[in-house]
This record gives sequence, structure tokens and C-alpha cells, in this order.
Amino acid sequence: MGMVGGGQGAFIGAVHRMAAALDSEIDLVCGAFSRDLANCSQTGRELGLTQDRCYSDLGEMLSCEASLGLGGGAAGGRGGMQLLSIVTPNNSHVDFASQAAKAGVHVMSDKPAGISLEEVEDLAVVLQATGTHYGLTHTYLGYPMVWQARHIAASEAFGPIRKVHVRYVQGWLASAAEDGNKQAAWRVDPALAGPGGALGDIGSHAHSLAEFICNSRMSSLVAHLRSHLPGRLLDDDGEILFELENGVTGSLVSSQICAGEENGLSITIYGENAGLEWHQEQPNSLIERRATGEVITHRAGVDKPLCDEALSRCRLPSGHPEGYVEAFANLYRNFARALRDGVAPITYGVPGIAEALRGMAFLEAAVESSNCAGALTEI
Amino acid sequence: MGMVGGGQGAFIGAVHRMAAALDSEIDLVCGAFSRDLANCSQTGRELGLTQDRCYSDLGEMLSCEASLGLGGGAAGGRGGMQLLSIVTPNNSHVDFASQAAKAGVHVMSDKPAGISLEEVEDLAVVLQATGTHYGLTHTYLGYPMVWQARHIAASEAFGPIRKVHVRYVQGWLASAAEDGNKQAAWRVDPALAGPGGALGDIGSHAHSLAEFICNSRMSSLVAHLRSHLPGRLLDDDGEILFELENGVTGSLVSSQICAGEENGLSITIYGENAGLEWHQEQPNSLIERRATGEVITHRAGVDKPLCDEALSRCRLPSGHPEGYVEAFANLYRNFARALRDGVAPITYGVPGIAEALRGMAFLEAAVESSNCAGALTEI
Amino acid sequence: MGMVGGGQGAFIGAVHRMAAALDSEIDLVCGAFSRDLANCSQTGRELGLTQDRCYSDLGEMLSCEASLGLGGGAAGGRGGMQLLSIVTPNNSHVDFASQAAKAGVHVMSDKPAGISLEEVEDLAVVLQATGTHYGLTHTYLGYPMVWQARHIAASEAFGPIRKVHVRYVQGWLASAAEDGNKQAAWRVDPALAGPGGALGDIGSHAHSLAEFICNSRMSSLVAHLRSHLPGRLLDDDGEILFELENGVTGSLVSSQICAGEENGLSITIYGENAGLEWHQEQPNSLIERRATGEVITHRAGVDKPLCDEALSRCRLPSGHPEGYVEAFANLYRNFARALRDGVAPITYGVPGIAEALRGMAFLEAAVESSNCAGALTEI
Amino acid sequence: MGMVGGGQGAFIGAVHRMAAALDSEIDLVCGAFSRDLANCSQTGRELGLTQDRCYSDLGEMLSCEASLGLGGGAAGGRGGMQLLSIVTPNNSHVDFASQAAKAGVHVMSDKPAGISLEEVEDLAVVLQATGTHYGLTHTYLGYPMVWQARHIAASEAFGPIRKVHVRYVQGWLASAAEDGNKQAAWRVDPALAGPGGALGDIGSHAHSLAEFICNSRMSSLVAHLRSHLPGRLLDDDGEILFELENGVTGSLVSSQICAGEENGLSITIYGENAGLEWHQEQPNSLIERRATGEVITHRAGVDKPLCDEALSRCRLPSGHPEGYVEAFANLYRNFARALRDGVAPITYGVPGIAEALRGMAFLEAAVESSNCAGALTEI
Repeated sequence: MGMVGGGQGAFIGAVHRMAAALDSEIDLVCGAFSRDLANCSQTGRELGLTQDRCYSDLGEMLSCEASLGLGGGAAGGRGGMQLLSIVTPNNSHVDFASQAAKAGVHVMSDKPAGISLEEVEDLAVVLQATGTHYGLTHTYLGYPMVWQARHIAASEAFGPIRKVHVRYVQGWLASAAEDGNKQAAWRVDPALAGPGGALGDIGSHAHSLAEFICNSRMSSLVAHLRSHLPGRLLDDDGEILFELENGVTGSLVSSQICAGEENGLSITIYGENAGLEWHQEQPNSLIERRATGEVITHRAGVDKPLCDEALSRCRLPSGHPEGYVEAFANLYRNFARALRDGVAPITYGVPGIAEALRGMAFLEAAVESSNCAGALTEI
Repeated sequence: MGMVGGGQGAFIGAVHRMAAALDSEIDLVCGAFSRDLANCSQTGRELGLTQDRCYSDLGEMLSCEASLGLGGGAAGGRGGMQLLSIVTPNNSHVDFASQAAKAGVHVMSDKPAGISLEEVEDLAVVLQATGTHYGLTHTYLGYPMVWQARHIAASEAFGPIRKVHVRYVQGWLASAAEDGNKQAAWRVDPALAGPGGALGDIGSHAHSLAEFICNSRMSSLVAHLRSHLPGRLLDDDGEILFELENGVTGSLVSSQICAGEENGLSITIYGENAGLEWHQEQPNSLIERRATGEVITHRAGVDKPLCDEALSRCRLPSGHPEGYVEAFANLYRNFARALRDGVAPITYGVPGIAEALRGMAFLEAAVESSNCAGALTEI
Repeated sequence: MGMVGGGQGAFIGAVHRMAAALDSEIDLVCGAFSRDLANCSQTGRELGLTQDRCYSDLGEMLSCEASLGLGGGAAGGRGGMQLLSIVTPNNSHVDFASQAAKAGVHVMSDKPAGISLEEVEDLAVVLQATGTHYGLTHTYLGYPMVWQARHIAASEAFGPIRKVHVRYVQGWLASAAEDGNKQAAWRVDPALAGPGGALGDIGSHAHSLAEFICNSRMSSLVAHLRSHLPGRLLDDDGEILFELENGVTGSLVSSQICAGEENGLSITIYGENAGLEWHQEQPNSLIERRATGEVITHRAGVDKPLCDEALSRCRLPSGHPEGYVEAFANLYRNFARALRDGVAPITYGVPGIAEALRGMAFLEAAVESSNCAGALTEI
Repeated sequence: MGMVGGGQGAFIGAVHRMAAALDSEIDLVCGAFSRDLANCSQTGRELGLTQDRCYSDLGEMLSCEASLGLGGGAAGGRGGMQLLSIVTPNNSHVDFASQAAKAGVHVMSDKPAGISLEEVEDLAVVLQATGTHYGLTHTYLGYPMVWQARHIAASEAFGPIRKVHVRYVQGWLASAAEDGNKQAAWRVDPALAGPGGALGDIGSHAHSLAEFICNSRMSSLVAHLRSHLPGRLLDDDGEILFELENGVTGSLVSSQICAGEENGLSITIYGENAGLEWHQEQPNSLIERRATGEVITHRAGVDKPLCDEALSRCRLPSGHPEGYVEAFANLYRNFARALRDGVAPITYGVPGIAEALRGMAFLEAAVESSNCAGALTEI
């Protein structure tokens, strides 16, 4: 695997690397970690790479790696890279994915897929033409209990789903964090982040999670987004009311100005006969409340009575908390397996280009509704 | 104190009686517990009342009690009742309150105050003319930590409030509970319940709580209400996005079809520098998360460093859970004290006619917005 | 009901009064609230009593009340008191109970029953001879989920009980609170408190709870008690390992120097097939973990699938937290019903003289073991 | 790194491998995963190793790897292994560690270090003579909040520590799991597990944790161990009361028959002015309760106000749950760094031979006390 982005001062790159490393099925063999060559070199050195495989830009990396032949991809080995991990700001995701695809290199991209629906549609064409695989790290779909929630929500006992409320609240942009914080700065710059601020950064996860668990796509919504800080160009806070194709209604809260909140992603789903509640900050518990009065906590763990999809995402007996990194790693592992088996990553549950398109459509519809005083908007 | 409503098969009447009894400052001396005379007699008997003070209707009760002279009111004694507790379905609240007021009897009414803004406005006139006092049991304002939340939210350290999200979800109307359940039946009948279903029953509490803690009145909203069961005439589920006069925006969820939920009232409030979270099901804890990274749990108890208003609503050292009944009792106690001191109940924190008016206005605006596809609506 | 103790500056007297009042089945008609006459008068006045029923001491109260005839007892009415609530320091419990019994007055005593096994044995004789009823306020037996725990622990599905761990930790004696605090002062004075410090005050509750849920009596123990503050004569901290008659082993922690703890009573019980966990600070939840991997939270509420004994101790639908006062009130209510029905209070679950004896025996055995370097000691 | 043990059917080997891989600072280059050659080959194949580096036993592995020269150790590269990870049953730990040390290979051993104090003393001599480094995976010392707890407990504000209660309860041996379960079978066999059953397996962690946070060594104890299943030769349940050298007293519960429990490790520590509570199943929260009434939840995360040692063990912003594997990885990472810097692993917080000795001494003292009816026993 090669990586573009993720040099010193970056955040998510290191998370991708940990996730890729955890199962020892993927080797990082090269990187274009930063346009700052010293940063790139140093990052590579710390990761145990030789300097000849630390590149100044993606173009150079793709051509040089190609000259090394096959074999240095997902499954390790001595040849050039076969897989590119993209961990740069949003505006370059599509360009880099496209370059990689044209070079015959598979892609795992950080979300969101890009900064406009159009450019991601173009990417879809490229991917189709080149036959390369593409993955998008909607991290929360790597959690066992998210799969268990979807499993229960689909059961006859649960009854038809009626409601879903999802909330993703953080507090780190409650003040003007963008002044001097690289992570914050690009996220509030439309040129780098695209049309959504908090919504693109975390609302996109909330959306993905709600659709995934309800197994239905959002069909209409009402959004109220706003920015609380003077001069901030993108939304840092907002609420969305929506309906899914299956008739389920719900709400989505997405905010980065909820002072004091850490990474507060949570979701509740109600069917005719029961309700489900999951909090990302306590990811191994899924609470089910039945209309008959029983309250059950489903717990993650290889020793637990869970559905197969949930079990296959557990590594440890229950009570050993598994975390964010491992969820991330599930996506990488499944992506690698898909490559090995010659099937689309979605077969193993890794979101792909179809999900990328859905995400962008959602994003633009939300922004549009908000710009129209919360008008009812189709996606 | 006399009571109208609260016979066998009722729910909230017993809660009022416990709350009134807890501090031994109010005696129940008479009642018109049910139009069914046998029910009324039996209820009175169980409560230790003599049969001559169990009345067939409120009119009879008011005239007979008047003939007993003063002294049998809030503070106990041998005379006729001085205070009426109204625990009947919503449609009779105003009529009964009005009758009592005209007879010179003070009123503690269950919420909501009535079934239309207009009739409550009329009541306000009567109260003004008669000089009687009126209380409304917005129970949650009896909790110590609700007062502490308001205190913190108003502090300079908290910073200006930006957001409030409040949610009140129950599950008991997820199925057609109204078929054969007296409690459910009147709540889904517009003639008895008024214009709001879940919204009137519990959304009214959520509204009251949000306004109270933010110390500002709702100025506009967008509401999406619905009924999930065929033939049900009133909302059993809905979401509202709103703005307060002080510019705070927020959301309110009110639903009785959230299968499995018990009495899930919770609220989160965010200021520039911190956030607060309170759950009615764990009422003695108030979580404060500061932007600086500290997470503090404020706990109820007479031994805790709380504001005076919170402390005056605690009866026990921390760790002894105080509950719903005690919160209810705070309102009664403060009402009784207000009577004794000759001041308006609001002086001691008991919501009064002004709050009754606010509640109805909110309710009607919400229904109106919902009827207009979620249009922006002024209150 | 009359009360001895509970004047201004006292704590538990007010709790007893609230508990007695909650269900409107008991009237407080008189009191000897303090040997300080001004305090007694003032307390009575605040409680709405006439001065002629505020007495200087128990003897006077018993003789004067007797002259008023029957009818002023548990069930209210105009005559003299029929029931005495004892809320004084431990050293007077037996004397006062004995006086009352000899005057034909029933007794509800705060725990522990006295300061030596011997004096409580004498009391048992008096009670037997006079035919009066006696209750002891082991508060925690008033909680619905404690009864549910006992119910589950006795079930075949749970399997034979193997282990019980109970812990009652408070922090208020971590520093020398007794200097100037009336509540603390008598609790650390052997002459007033008896042989146990923290053990008598709260360890007695832990003991009662463990025996009750396991439905077996403690048969042997090892205790390590100590005092952490110089000059403090009674234990403020200790651990006990024990065995019940049914072979169950376990541990008991009792401490009042656990700085920062509020009222941390908790218990875990394990059978062959499942475990139970209950925390007094969240009294409406009882967690059951099954060996098969299921985790179930049993919740209090009249709408919940609970055993009859638990249900009869719930007053409200689930999700409305019921608290300490209500649990206390369950004991009073059941005591009153027992009086009315002419049966022993234990019939309705109120701990009686047998439990009082058990408690003292436990206490003395614990102290003895501790004095002997933790020697194995029979109870 | 090479590994001995950890073939198919094993549990902890995979955890070690994930932990070693997470930070990409250690490469697994060879293994003697099982004495069953097919198992060994297959395990190696799944881990991407070539068959020539899958060995039939440790002796063969050590000699063959030596012939490959340096460079294939902790830091990766092409030569032979430099570090051995031992993940076999307890009875072989010392033998394997000793063999490795004599071959100049560093050792990371699963705990406990061996099956008798004597053999670990012998190992200490070998390590001293050969100059190789040795690490022991007391996993819980890899958690950030465990370091934060130690930091707070040592602070002046906390006051001198008085009490510590630690509990490690699991339920998987509540029934005769050893019949047919490889993991259970060796743990209940004294020949393979050594003198402690539950105590060696998990009580050893509880002990290590209590000593670490209190920064003092256990000096005396009273233990009551037992086995609940007929024919089971080692303890599966027990309680220990102890005193540390600094005068702190406490209790330790260690049990694997607590039906339904997952991995319930928790600890509470009380100083003169505050208390601390930590649960492994929610590892990112450390609760501090101050005697002044404040309750603070310290949370893990690189953005949180924590001590340096805690911060250096966080990888992510708060709210992204970090887990067991990452804690494990902290030990490996620090071990690798220590190797690179040429210092003892303990310098970077990795428990070493001194801790290994302490653990065995504790274990034997506990067994001895238990065998003597809970007699007071020096360690």
C-alpha cells in the first residue's frame, strides 16, 4: 500500500496506517506524505520506509512504483504498490483517486469522496473504465454492533421501522480553532473541504449510518445549517429532518460547535415493537428496548450470540473493549480480501462508489435545502 | 385540598396526592374523584375521607365546602377546602379552574392548562378578577438539577447559549393502546385532549423545560408531526426545529410511538464554552462538559455545592436518589408557601398563568406549522 | 403516629415523616422531637401539630396520648397515637421501644435496633409479652428491584447461588466531621452508637441486603475493621468475608472514609447460570447477565414484567424514577396494613424483631472477629 | 519478532500480533506457532510468512534465525529475529525465555512469568548474565487512564492513599468449560498453569494494577480461594484482603465463576480528600470524586488535560474509543523503543523481571494463606 497525505501535522493518516497494520495483511511500502519534501522524508523514515520510496508527489509515486512491478500491494511483497490510501483534504480526493485508477492502482479514500457530485461522477466513469477497485472509509460501518443493529432492525420481531434519530456532535470548532490549527483550517475552507463544513466532515457519517442501519436511502429532507462564528464560510452546526424511501422519518443533528462534546455520534431507531440505541463512544453495547418491557444490552465479542456479520467484525471475547482503530481496520481487511478474491469490496461490506455518489447527493441536497430556508428538498 | 378527578383507573391523581402528602403541609379533605358515584365513594374511603366529603361533581363540592368555612385548605385544619387539585382530562381543566376561582378556591392544575389558547385566556381573566392563585404542574421544574442547569447556563463561564436539543420519547402508544386503555383513550381523542396528542401530553413538558433552562421564550419553529396508527386523530410523533428570542436555535422531539422507551426526557444545551446534559431518568446527575476538556457531573444533594434554588429543592444528602414524586411535591410545597405568604406562586418557582398561556401558544403554533408542511411559524 | 427524636438538626426524622406521609395512610399526631423544649415546640409547630401534643419526653407522651383513647394511630383519626416512630441515636432505641410496647403502642424503629444483643433480646421479651408490633427500617428492603433480585436469585434458571459481594461506601467521615457535626458526633461515640461505627450505621444495611436477596443467614465471617482518624473510637472502615448457611461465600465492604463517595450501596450476586447487579444510586435498574451471553436490564415500573412483590412496591410507570423516600414509605405502608389486618408486619415484608436480633448478632460477631485479627467467627 | 505459541485454536497470540503490528514498528518474521507442524505451517501461511521461517520448535527457530544474522528483530529488516514473543501456557514461559536469552534474543512474555518463584529467579540470573531484555505483558499498564489514576493518586490534593479495592471477575469458568475447550483446559491444570487458577490468570492483573496505581508493594494479605466445580484442581474464585507497604489496606476479588461477567476488571482508590474509580470495560473514563462534592470524569484523548504519561499513551482525540489492543501495543512499542535506545524497558513503563518476581511472590503467598484458612501471610 502507498499513501498520499498523512505527513507530520496530519491526523487521519496515522489512523489509516494503524488500521492497515493491525491485521498484518497490508504493508505500507511507499508514500507521498507531504508536498514538503523534508516532512515527507521524515515521515517515511519514521515509518521504516527507504527514502527512494518517499515521493514528492502522487504522479512520481505512481510512475516509479509501476516500474517496480506487481506484488507490493495490499498483501505485501517486494514489488510496487497495488493500493493507494488517500488521506489528504477533500478537494484532492477525486483527482488522486482518478490518477491512481488510471495507473491500475486500487484506492481507499478518506471520506467524503470529493467536493462535488460532478467530480465524483467523473471518477465513477474512470473507475468503471479502468476496472480498479475503490473504497471509502465510512468508519462506523466497521463496528460489529452497527451490523447487529441493522440485523435486528430488519427482523420480523422488531417490526417495520418507523423512526430514526441520529446525532453527531463535536465541540472542537466552538471557538475559532481554525486560527493556527491545520486540521481545523482546511475543514472550514470551502475550496479545500467542499460544500459542507460539519456536515461534510461528520454529518456524512451520520447519514451513512442511518441509511445503513435502516437499509433504505434518504429520499427527502429539510435542513437548517448555520455557522456560529463570524467569517466562517461553511456550516458548523445544523439539523435535518428527513424521510427514507421506505417511509421512515427522522432527524439528523450535525454540529462541531457543541462545546465540550468529544465525538458524540449516536443513533436511535424505532420499529413497531422495539427500539435500538447505539453510542459510538461505547461501541460495544447496543441497547434494545422491547415494547413488552424487556431491556436487553447486546454486547460485542466473539463469545456473544450475535449475527454472523457482527461476529466476523469482533476479534476478542466480550468485555475487552475494541475500538475505533479496529473498526477502521475491518474496512481495510475486507478491502484486501476483496482484492484477493477478485470481488467488489462492497461484497465484504466496504462502501464503494455507489455510496460515494449517495453521500455527495445527500450533501448537496442538504446545503440546497438550508439555502432555501429549510425547504423540502429531494435527493 | 380538594381534588377533582383521580378516581380508580386514573393515574396522575395518585401522583398528585403523594406529592401533596410528602411534606405534610397539605391535607386532602375532600374530592369529586369520579362522576361514577361508586368509584368516587370508594376512592374517598381508601383515602380516609368521610363520605360526606366525597362529592358527585365539582359544583356540589365547591358549594358544600364553602359552607364549612375557611381553614381546610392547603395548610390543613377543620374548615372547607381552600385549594383545588385538577387531575381530569385536558378538556375540563379550564372549566374546573374557572369554577374554583369564582368560588374563591385556589387551583393547582395538571398540564396542559386547557385545550385552546382562547379558553385559557378567558381563564386568565377570571383569575385576575377573582384574585385566586393558579398553579400548573410542569413537573420537571421541580427537579433540583433543572434549576442547576439553568443556573450554569446563565453563568458567564458558560458563555452565551447557542443550542438546545430536547427530546421526550415514550413507547406506550406504539401500538393501539387506546383500545381498552382509559389513559390512552382520552389522550388520542381531540375532544378530550385538545389539539396536541403526544405534543400536548409530553412535548409540552419538553417545551417548558427548554424555555426554562435557556431562560428565553420560543419565538419561531418548524414542526413535523404525524400519527403512525391508522385512525388516530392526534399526533403521536413529531420533530420541531425552533429559535428562541435570544437567538438560540434547537430541536424538540416529541413521540409516544418510540417502542420500548419508558419516559425518555432529556435535554442538552451548549454555550460558547461548555455543554450541559440532563436525563430525567437519572435526575440527580447533570453533566457539564467544558471546552477545555473537563467533564464534571453535578449531583443533587443537600451536601453538594449547588446554587440556592437547586439546594432548596433537595431534601437528602447526595446519593439517595430523589424522584419524580418529590419533584412534584416541590411544586405543591412552594404553592402552599406562596398561599401562606400571600405572594404569587411564581415567586417560589411554581409555573402560573403566564406559563399556561405560553404553553398553549406554543402548542397551537406547532400544530399550525405542521399543518403547513413544516412552514416557519411565529409563536 | 407519634415520633420520638427528629427535631431540628436531625436528619433521619424528616425522612421518616416524608415516608409516613407519602401514601396518606398515616397521620403524625404528636411528637417528643427533642429534649430541648424550644426545639420540640418549634418542630411541632412546623409540622402543624398543636402545642399540647408536643411533649418533653416519651414518658409524658405515652401517658398523655393514652388518655386520648384509641384512634389516633397509624390510620389517623382523633384519638391518641397508636404507633411510635423512633428516630433517636442508637442507644435509646431499645428503651423507647420498650416503653412504647408496655404502653400498648406499636413501634417503628430506626436501625440498628439497639447497642447490644442483650438489650434487644430483652426487648424481644417485652414485645412478646405485650403483643405489640415492631418494625425496623432496613430501608433497602423497600425497593422494588431488591425484591426482584431475590425473586430471580431464587429461580431455577439462575441456578444455585454461589457468591455475593456487597459494598456500602460513604465519604462523609473521611475527615473529622464529628467536630461540630451533630450527625457525625453521635455516630462515632460508642456510648450513643453502640459497638459499630460505619458497620452499625451502614454495614448493617449491607448485611441485611445480602441475607435478604440470598434468602439465607450469614453463618461465619472474617472481619477487618479499622479507624483511620486519630482518636476515633469506632470503626470507620472495614472488610468482611463471610459464608451463608446455604454455603454461599462473599465479601462485605463497609466504610465511611471513602472520600467523595455519596451513598454507594451496591451488590452483586452470582448463581451457576447468571449474575445480578444492583446499585442503590440507580435503584430502578437491576442488571442480569446470563452465562449464555445475554445482558438484561430489569426496570422498575407498574408496566414492567416483574414479580408480584416488586410490582406491589412500584407506584409509577417505568422511567419515572422512584426513590429513597418511596422505598421508606413502602415499609410504613406495609406496617400500617399489617396493623389493620392484625398480622405481623413481616407478613407484608417489614423486617421485625427476628431481623433485629440477627443484625445485632452479626454486628457483634464482626467486631469480635476484627478484634481477633480477623479470626473466623461464628454468628 | 518471532513468536512461540499462538497457532490455530489459541487466543492470546493473535492479540499479541495485532498489538505488535499496530504501530508498524515491529515485523513478525518467524514463528514456532504450534508443535503440530500442520498447524504451525498454516498459521505462518496466514500471517504471510514463508514456510522456511515456520519452525517446529523454539530450539530450531533460535538456531536457524541466528544464522540469518542481525536485523530481523523488533525494527523489521531482512535478518533473523531479535525479539521473541512468548504466548504459550504458563509452564513453558521460563524455559522459552531462558532459551531465547541464551541465544541473545530479547523476550516479551505473556503473564504470569512462570509457574514458580524459583524458576523465575533462575530466569532472572540468565537474563542478567546474557544482558538480554525481558518484558511481561501486564496489559492494563498500557492504558492511559491507569497512568492518570496513578498520577492523581500521587498528588498532594488527593491526600495520602488509604484504601484500594480491586476486582477482576469473569464468568467463563462458571461451568465445566475445560471439557473440550483448549483455552480453559490448560488454565485449570496445575502442571500447565502453575499454582494459581483464576488468581494466576486474572488475579495477577488485579494485583499488578493495585500496586501500580498505589505505587507501593503489597506487604501482607489474607486470601480465601476456592474451586466451585467438582474435580477442578485450581482456584476459580477467591477474595484477598491486603495491606501495602505504605499502610494502604484493601481487598482483591478474583473469580472466573461469576456467571455472566465478561472481563470485569475495576478498581477504586481512596485518599484523604478524594476517590478514584476505573473500569476496564470503559477504559477511557476515570472518575474522580472529591470530598468537596465535585465529581470529575477524566477522559482519555490527545486533546485532554492529562499527565504526560497518560497523554503519551493516547493516539486519538477524545471520544474515539481506544481499546485493549492499543493498550497492548503500547507495551510493544515501548519495548521496541527501549531496545532501540539501549535502555531497560521499564524506563518506558514496560514491566520487567522485577515485576515478574513480585508477581510470583504474591501468587505463592496468596495460595499459602488460603491453604492456611486465610492466615495472615507475608509476601
